[in-house]
Amino acid sequence: MTVPIDPQTMADLKIAVGSRGWIDDEAGIAPFLEEQRGLFHGNTSLVLRPANVGEVAAIVQICAATGTPIVPQGGNTGMVGGAVPHEEGGQVLVNLSRMHAIRVIDSFNNTMEVEAGCVLADIQRAAADADKLFPLSLAAEGTCQIGGNLSTNAGGTNVLRYGNARSLVLGLEVVLPDGEIWSGLRGLRKDNTGYDLKQLFIGAEGTLGIITAAVLKLFPRPRETTTAMIAVRDPTAALELLIEVQEASGDAVTAWELMPRYGLELTLKNIPGTVDPFGGPHCWYVLGELSGGASAGHQRASLERVLANGLESGQVEDAVIATSAAQSGALWRIREAMPEAQRVEGSGVRHDVAVPLSRIAEFIDTATKNARAAIADMRIIAYGHLGDGNIHFNLSPHNQADREAFLTRREELMGIVHDTAVAMNGTISAEHGIGRLKRDEIARYKSTTEMNVMRAVKAALDPKGIMNPGKVL
Amino acid sequence: MTVPIDPQTMADLKIAVGSRGWIDDEAGIAPFLEEQRGLFHGNTSLVLRPANVGEVAAIVQICAATGTPIVPQGGNTGMVGGAVPHEEGGQVLVNLSRMHAIRVIDSFNNTMEVEAGCVLADIQRAAADADKLFPLSLAAEGTCQIGGNLSTNAGGTNVLRYGNARSLVLGLEVVLPDGEIWSGLRGLRKDNTGYDLKQLFIGAEGTLGIITAAVLKLFPRPRETTTAMIAVRDPTAALELLIEVQEASGDAVTAWELMPRYGLELTLKNIPGTVDPFGGPHCWYVLGELSGGASAGHQRASLERVLANGLESGQVEDAVIATSAAQSGALWRIREAMPEAQRVEGSGVRHDVAVPLSRIAEFIDTATKNARAAIADMRIIAYGHLGDGNIHFNLSPHNQADREAFLTRREELMGIVHDTAVAMNGTISAEHGIGRLKRDEIARYKSTTEMNVMRAVKAALDPKGIMNPGKVL
Repeated sequence: MTVPIDPQTMADLKIAVGSRGWIDDEAGIAPFLEEQRGLFHGNTSLVLRPANVGEVAAIVQICAATGTPIVPQGGNTGMVGGAVPHEEGGQVLVNLSRMHAIRVIDSFNNTMEVEAGCVLADIQRAAADADKLFPLSLAAEGTCQIGGNLSTNAGGTNVLRYGNARSLVLGLEVVLPDGEIWSGLRGLRKDNTGYDLKQLFIGAEGTLGIITAAVLKLFPRPRETTTAMIAVRDPTAALELLIEVQEASGDAVTAWELMPRYGLELTLKNIPGTVDPFGGPHCWYVLGELSGGASAGHQRASLERVLANGLESGQVEDAVIATSAAQSGALWRIREAMPEAQRVEGSGVRHDVAVPLSRIAEFIDTATKNARAAIADMRIIAYGHLGDGNIHFNLSPHNQADREAFLTRREELMGIVHDTAVAMNGTISAEHGIGRLKRDEIARYKSTTEMNVMRAVKAALDPKGIMNPGKVL
Repeated sequence: MTVPIDPQTMADLKIAVGSRGWIDDEAGIAPFLEEQRGLFHGNTSLVLRPANVGEVAAIVQICAATGTPIVPQGGNTGMVGGAVPHEEGGQVLVNLSRMHAIRVIDSFNNTMEVEAGCVLADIQRAAADADKLFPLSLAAEGTCQIGGNLSTNAGGTNVLRYGNARSLVLGLEVVLPDGEIWSGLRGLRKDNTGYDLKQLFIGAEGTLGIITAAVLKLFPRPRETTTAMIAVRDPTAALELLIEVQEASGDAVTAWELMPRYGLELTLKNIPGTVDPFGGPHCWYVLGELSGGASAGHQRASLERVLANGLESGQVEDAVIATSAAQSGALWRIREAMPEAQRVEGSGVRHDVAVPLSRIAEFIDTATKNARAAIADMRIIAYGHLGDGNIHFNLSPHNQADREAFLTRREELMGIVHDTAVAMNGTISAEHGIGRLKRDEIARYKSTTEMNVMRAVKAALDPKGIMNPGKVL
């Protein structure tokens, strides 16, 4: 049973966006409702596709006046159900994809002004065309949109060196929950004039307003990139090596990704064209990358030096440094295919936790032990962004036959893994956010004080509660 | 006439902090009341010096219950009167300097947990002792405290590479305006679990709560540093060179400071021991610094290459690259002494503006023209953090005799310079903040929408308005 949207409100909203700006037939709406992991199935009788900030403001004004809930949506590639409307309906979906202009690139200021609906890969490409780097990079980059990336404070593989999405923004334009437009499209490196309002909207998952445009930071395009696959003794060795390479290279490490043997095996088995870079098996691997200026092999030399010492000390068991872009691509393919290689085997219980880097090895050990105490026999793959302390800790049954029974224990397993992370001053959501999936959980893990401040901010900016209700808090 | 603090409240506050934690005699209080530029003269009958977060919470609870205003204070080195109480009295001053423990350094996590009252230089030293870098660096580092640095989102000379204070924090502990303690002392690189509350308190200048402790980010200690003084054709050439060096060096530029001839002349005249690095005069200079890993002269080589090209194209008129730490120190001394060299000449009208980097040359030209349209004959020194777009644009009369008349036109001149910056999408306060000095001005320059959001946040967190009232907004 779907809650309808008031007919007069529907009519007003359609007028606000013009004939190209709305969809109200079931078949046309359907593609906007599916959350990619299939955990949530949304419903609505109206999808709006505004063409500019004025139309977004008009939409929000109408919704504010009538108390109609709004779900903002970018590329809808999120992992926590943040961008799909409630299955009961009654919420207007506002999709930003028609606002996809890259407005201006300022090469001297190292900035780019873009609209919220720009696809991340298009932004990366435009930056590269201007001989610059926009470093945000993640699996969904071909379809995710920058508005969503900012609303969810996206992470990915370059956070180690360049920070997450929050670090890559200088200015925002936001339509507030009352329909006012906040024009904060500044391109300033320094601006200490009161509260830094953009910080409120970054990572708020659309619960405080709709991001419609942004000024992004650009960086010098690296002239040299060195990619290596390193077979390491254990996660502690991987971390020690990271610190050493960071020091030796002048903080030029842009990726340091941990993978277990079992993850590599699934990739070799399920992803055509992947090849084990080593002659024999090793328990743990690191995919490392350094990027920097034109320095005629300096980076490579500093990496080789650290790896040579590591071989002597036993931290390193074997290592391959790519000598061509093709080799580098082949190494990256192993890492990038890892989620898909697991998906092929069937669904499991996945986590996106982070702990302080100094506790990663302890986390992997303890979480493994705690999970096995609940279910002795299962597959555990702990992999991910070691350099950020961010581990995707994925659990699945050995046999297809056990999968259904296994998945019934999802909440129990999540509780075990999340409790373990939080006990080590970690987090239950490093980069994926809260959305609907972890909404009840943060209320359990966060202090009442913290939840109260979050609720006070929400009530102050969105007193009618129309912005993405039921998400985050 | 000083407003008294209610005697019972005074008594309760004294009990809350114990006998070593309060000062109520005029002579003892006096040193806490002077704002360094002498623009504001505060007054209070009670200075509290809590020893721990529990005492801070007890203070705020009492003040919240009685509606007693609080002024938080660190090293009191701010430039805008943010840390001194109102001259009418009635506000309790809470000085954090007794809370100065460096609690823990985590070398693997690259983090350091510190209390708010730690002096910045002590933090830098502790990081260096652990073979790490804490990059925040500014003129007042010998006395300013990290709580104040974070509350004001301090800038300084390393922002170009490492960001401002906001970028250097992973976690905070804050006493909220109701006396509750928010324990957000996380050391995580990634944590997307709802609103990033620490962002609210960073740069809020104590109007939303009192920062009592922080988890700071550390970086690999640079193994190689290259310092150069470059005589450049003009500010545009300085900017072009910056972009080229950033590209060639792999984004290793940590400082790029612009200075005009007249600034150098005042330094040579007023600061003993400073020496012109060049044989003849030049209109503009850049102090540049690159920092990175151990690379046996790689940085220096990339800098030399860019400078050689610049000499050929005319962007560079002359250049000196330091060959020893002593030489590097001598070059830095010229830049660092520049504010003092101007102070010696007598007070003037100073500005702390920023514009997009691509508009710096235009800003200097236009602001000079506009200022001279008001007073044809004056000294103008435009210098500062070119790499951040942050220019200190300082105006003063040529003769001591004209000073008093000149200073009566302070507001007019500030209006001219600030209007010019804002017209170029710039800011009237790049790094110094708002405090009391620029409170009326931001209300004029910011949109009603932006001011309303700021006021909504303030009202939500501090409904009684007891936290540093009369500052910022």
